[in-house]
Amino acid sequence: MNTGRLETFADGVFAIAATLLILSVDGHFGSCAPAGATLKHQLECSWPSYVAYVVSFLTIGIIWVNHHTVMDQIDHADRTFLMITVGFLMIVAFIPFPTRLVAEDIRGEGATAATVAYGITLTLTAALFNAVWFYAARGGRLLRPDADPQTVRGISKTFVFGPWTYLAITLVAAIDPVAGAVGFGAFALFWVIESSVFGRDRSQRSTVR
Amino acid sequence: MNTGRLETFADGVFAIAATLLILSVDGHFGSCAPAGATLKHQLECSWPSYVAYVVSFLTIGIIWVNHHTVMDQIDHADRTFLMITVGFLMIVAFIPFPTRLVAEDIRGEGATAATVAYGITLTLTAALFNAVWFYAARGGRLLRPDADPQTVRGISKTFVFGPWTYLAITLVAAIDPVAGAVGFGAFALFWVIESSVFGRDRSQRSTVR
Amino acid sequence: MNTGRLETFADGVFAIAATLLILSVDGHFGSCAPAGATLKHQLECSWPSYVAYVVSFLTIGIIWVNHHTVMDQIDHADRTFLMITVGFLMIVAFIPFPTRLVAEDIRGEGATAATVAYGITLTLTAALFNAVWFYAARGGRLLRPDADPQTVRGISKTFVFGPWTYLAITLVAAIDPVAGAVGFGAFALFWVIESSVFGRDRSQRSTVR
Amino acid sequence: MNTGRLETFADGVFAIAATLLILSVDGHFGSCAPAGATLKHQLECSWPSYVAYVVSFLTIGIIWVNHHTVMDQIDHADRTFLMITVGFLMIVAFIPFPTRLVAEDIRGEGATAATVAYGITLTLTAALFNAVWFYAARGGRLLRPDADPQTVRGISKTFVFGPWTYLAITLVAAIDPVAGAVGFGAFALFWVIESSVFGRDRSQRSTVR
Repeated sequence: MNTGRLETFADGVFAIAATLLILSVDGHFGSCAPAGATLKHQLECSWPSYVAYVVSFLTIGIIWVNHHTVMDQIDHADRTFLMITVGFLMIVAFIPFPTRLVAEDIRGEGATAATVAYGITLTLTAALFNAVWFYAARGGRLLRPDADPQTVRGISKTFVFGPWTYLAITLVAAIDPVAGAVGFGAFALFWVIESSVFGRDRSQRSTVR
Repeated sequence: MNTGRLETFADGVFAIAATLLILSVDGHFGSCAPAGATLKHQLECSWPSYVAYVVSFLTIGIIWVNHHTVMDQIDHADRTFLMITVGFLMIVAFIPFPTRLVAEDIRGEGATAATVAYGITLTLTAALFNAVWFYAARGGRLLRPDADPQTVRGISKTFVFGPWTYLAITLVAAIDPVAGAVGFGAFALFWVIESSVFGRDRSQRSTVR
Repeated sequence: MNTGRLETFADGVFAIAATLLILSVDGHFGSCAPAGATLKHQLECSWPSYVAYVVSFLTIGIIWVNHHTVMDQIDHADRTFLMITVGFLMIVAFIPFPTRLVAEDIRGEGATAATVAYGITLTLTAALFNAVWFYAARGGRLLRPDADPQTVRGISKTFVFGPWTYLAITLVAAIDPVAGAVGFGAFALFWVIESSVFGRDRSQRSTVR
Repeated sequence: MNTGRLETFADGVFAIAATLLILSVDGHFGSCAPAGATLKHQLECSWPSYVAYVVSFLTIGIIWVNHHTVMDQIDHADRTFLMITVGFLMIVAFIPFPTRLVAEDIRGEGATAATVAYGITLTLTAALFNAVWFYAARGGRLLRPDADPQTVRGISKTFVFGPWTYLAITLVAAIDPVAGAVGFGAFALFWVIESSVFGRDRSQRSTVR
């Protein structure tokens, strides 16, 4: 079973989940302003929506880039691998929902619940991405015969940190939701910079999360 | 007529239908809680939405995996095959709607109507998937010249059970909607486990529904 | 400029427009029933939504099948061809909107306006599909060197009827909206049957609309 | 790292963003008419929605055509290029939101805020498209070894005007929103005509924005 169609399906889910994020900006737009507020005022008070959109879009973008790198090392798929990938994509496609909650509630009573829900979703995403990778890599099960051992070790080494980092930020969010939200943004930004600035010289080892 | 573009279109519909399921979580979020409830309370009482999301996502995921396996046996498509596939995809794309109904009404007056609507949709999905397969396989009409006869027989044997099983669970749902809902979840889980745990040794014969 | 990426983009728009149709079932679900009606009653009175969903999905499906056949005859694309295709896809992606109007208003005061809006959209779709085809086929501009002249003539002959038929049904809808709606459904059904039953022996000439 | 999967993902985002524009027509349909207005009246007063839909769809269509031309010159991708592309797609996927605002508010108090928000989005889109191109083209970093120098210079020369033109129209919109809206429409129309009418003879040099 080759991996071409798997990548098409995965890319479809990544692209749709990322694009649906705009509904989390549009869906409840204006609810931050009092009734009768000007559109300008509504646009200004909605800034957490824009930030949440950017953070979640970049997060899905990084996942996509890394999925790209992982699949480059993989030769073929078996049905177990397909089912784990379906589970992984299921969590990725869930991201727009807690994104909307954070955007809407970060300044309200529900800030803690919203950021914790967001954090649990990202922790599960990272955990399932680990499952995808380690199922394929364990004993070289699905790897290409010519997969570079150093790249494989590099991915393994960086991936294991993902779920724990998200779990840690989620715990921060449970205590201080704004600090947690800043943490999720900072972590996404870290990967973007890590990938694009430092990734250039060691482009092989930098496949992350 | 080769099958490449058919797979792109089908994968597109599978990916979008699966990703749109999140709207069934988000769309009526909070309607389970009384006005003024905390976000935490709303998140907790919405658990049937998450379960419905998972069950429908896995169901579409299994359909995708099995469509993958079916298309691997198929050499080319004719216009009748394309039209049957369009009909099949039409029912798959319908799944988000009854999913939302079940998520919202499983604890209310409409539980029976919602689960029966869900069951009819899945029964039709399985019936049309059968039509797709048997149109292609009957007399080897569209099969690859080198299609493995044992695999073909294996698919045929397992597919015929799909519609009848869904019909049976739908009848259960008509009497006891919660039992029906559990049935749909259990059936999805059965395929996931069957595919991923047992599918490894007999990966060819296990293509199902 | 080869046509691979054009087909990916077009298939994406077809798949998304078709899948978004479910929002026209879900979006205003229940508005046909009085407040406090049972879910069963809401599901029953919503039957025009299901019919509209089926007719529009099949219509987009037929367009997809025919686009498939057209692109099989085409060797390469120029920028004019890309822009005409973008215009064509723009109208296809518009279809979910009048579909929702027809579903909701066919039994109300707005039946005429809704079916006429639906008819104008389909007339424009067919007209732009003609523009796509005749721009490519005129003098063999973008056709494959080995395009079958009989197939090319067959497509040209059948395509020209599309816009006029839709225009005629739209005029019927302006006088009697229910008759118009039945006409749109019958026309879609006609193509499905024509394609799948008769299309088998003369699979080349039957490329339609 | 080859560019196939990048194009699939980009085409997915373009196709979804363009198709989601229909939600900006449908979402608040009827809000322009007084309560109890006929559907015909609602359809008529909603004309700015249709115009906004057409302008944004064509704009995304032109971006897609130009991305197509850019990618034809590019040989491979590195991680920095992927991350810049993710940022670019993030802004493209944002377009449906200000489109809806313009459609709804162009005749109201919020006309200035809406058209300025639309203009900022398009200015950023053009700026990031420039970043995509110049990152790849600077010193021939990611270009195909056989990239045509004249085409490359042609793209570079035309692209730099994009952000400045959008910025200028945005400034016009800040003073006179209707003039700004007409400007955005005229600019889209200009590219469509430029691409399709003049693009034929100098199809290589006309890759724009």
